[in-house]
Amino acid sequence: MRNIKLTLEYDGAPFNGFQIQPDKPTVQRELEIALSKIFDQRIKIIAASGRTDAGVHAWGQVVNFKIDNDRPLHKIQHGLNSRLHPAISVKQIKEVKSDFHARYHAKSKVYLYRIWNAPWRSPLYRRESWHIPAKLDLKKMSDAVKYVLGKHNFKAFSSSGGTQKNYVRTLKKFEVKKGGYKIDFEVEADGFLYHMVRNLVGTVVECGEGSRDPKSLKALLKTQDRKQAGRTAPALGLALKNVKY
Amino acid sequence: MRNIKLTLEYDGAPFNGFQIQPDKPTVQRELEIALSKIFDQRIKIIAASGRTDAGVHAWGQVVNFKIDNDRPLHKIQHGLNSRLHPAISVKQIKEVKSDFHARYHAKSKVYLYRIWNAPWRSPLYRRESWHIPAKLDLKKMSDAVKYVLGKHNFKAFSSSGGTQKNYVRTLKKFEVKKGGYKIDFEVEADGFLYHMVRNLVGTVVECGEGSRDPKSLKALLKTQDRKQAGRTAPALGLALKNVKY
Repeated sequence: MRNIKLTLEYDGAPFNGFQIQPDKPTVQRELEIALSKIFDQRIKIIAASGRTDAGVHAWGQVVNFKIDNDRPLHKIQHGLNSRLHPAISVKQIKEVKSDFHARYHAKSKVYLYRIWNAPWRSPLYRRESWHIPAKLDLKKMSDAVKYVLGKHNFKAFSSSGGTQKNYVRTLKKFEVKKGGYKIDFEVEADGFLYHMVRNLVGTVVECGEGSRDPKSLKALLKTQDRKQAGRTAPALGLALKNVKY
Repeated sequence: MRNIKLTLEYDGAPFNGFQIQPDKPTVQRELEIALSKIFDQRIKIIAASGRTDAGVHAWGQVVNFKIDNDRPLHKIQHGLNSRLHPAISVKQIKEVKSDFHARYHAKSKVYLYRIWNAPWRSPLYRRESWHIPAKLDLKKMSDAVKYVLGKHNFKAFSSSGGTQKNYVRTLKKFEVKKGGYKIDFEVEADGFLYHMVRNLVGTVVECGEGSRDPKSLKALLKTQDRKQAGRTAPALGLALKNVKY
């Protein structure tokens, strides 16, 4: 059996998230249908980040699957890209060791979150950014992100609906950058709780709006109370950038 | 009468180009309907670049219109952005001198053309770039663009269908830049013939593919023969960046 690793880019808009659901278009479903056609047998994939919400994009989602077939890698990639929905593409294909597991072996995941911060809407960024018309204070947001960096219990930033028992995660990077009217957050952690990036961004934005003190995020973590944190930023601004192994 | 100048951003995908056509969705139509509702009278606009093709985007199209009404500018902008199709937005609004004419007074227009040059499709750039899987030679394309810079008769790069009699234009800028797998062309001229940017890019791409000698572009201009030039690059990669006055 070969173990094959794929790196995927996708536009999340047409799908009901990644994970397979009966009768709904999902990225996993599209991919498994294409793989099953190519190899003429049912194939199940494992994803680094399988529980991503409807509307979330990916620059570099990673999946793996096992197959007993000696077709060359470039032919598998080409066959997939010819069959897959235009909103999904296989960027990279690689044969990996038999024990490689896209989810269990991930050391960290990196997410990007984009805000369009101008009084007018942006038609060309409307599908991949959260539009906030009022001016956000970049300095306050840059301050805020520092208070949640490191190893913490992130229960206050986890929406109900998650299946997690352990809420401790290590936030390795949380940066905010402005370019023109775009504000980009980059968030890296060893793992993420349900809605964690969107809740972190929604809370930091309240610091940028002036309705929350950046320093208060330290105390907020300790409350472990979701109700104390800010709103959940919309899904369309979020993209899985890459997965580190 | 006030003379009002608007700067527009739009995603060209949902429209049959800019200019009004009976029973077809166009940017001009959407804009004139919204203006007419706001001011409760028929309003006609003048655009810097009215003949842009279906699928072409804009970061900064400029239009003007006259109105006898004293509503504050920010209210007009807000009213338009609330009513317009999500693929169109008014970025800027300004009151200008009564003789300002968005088309006649334009000194130059700047277009961007994007190519996605990787063997795999890019879902997230698919709506705004031309996908060319085979590797393009950047050096050859950078050479090629220099041969068409300046004041020339550009008939060889003008598709039939234009109404122009005079084919002389001054190409002030024609640059090519690579960032990752993206290749961006920036083209500035005092005016453009029908399909001129798309024909220039299509021809330069043939130099990048190796099927055309960059130096030959000098002789090509002299032929004034469209059949000697390269293919027309697809519309979706093209965007009007801004208009200079």
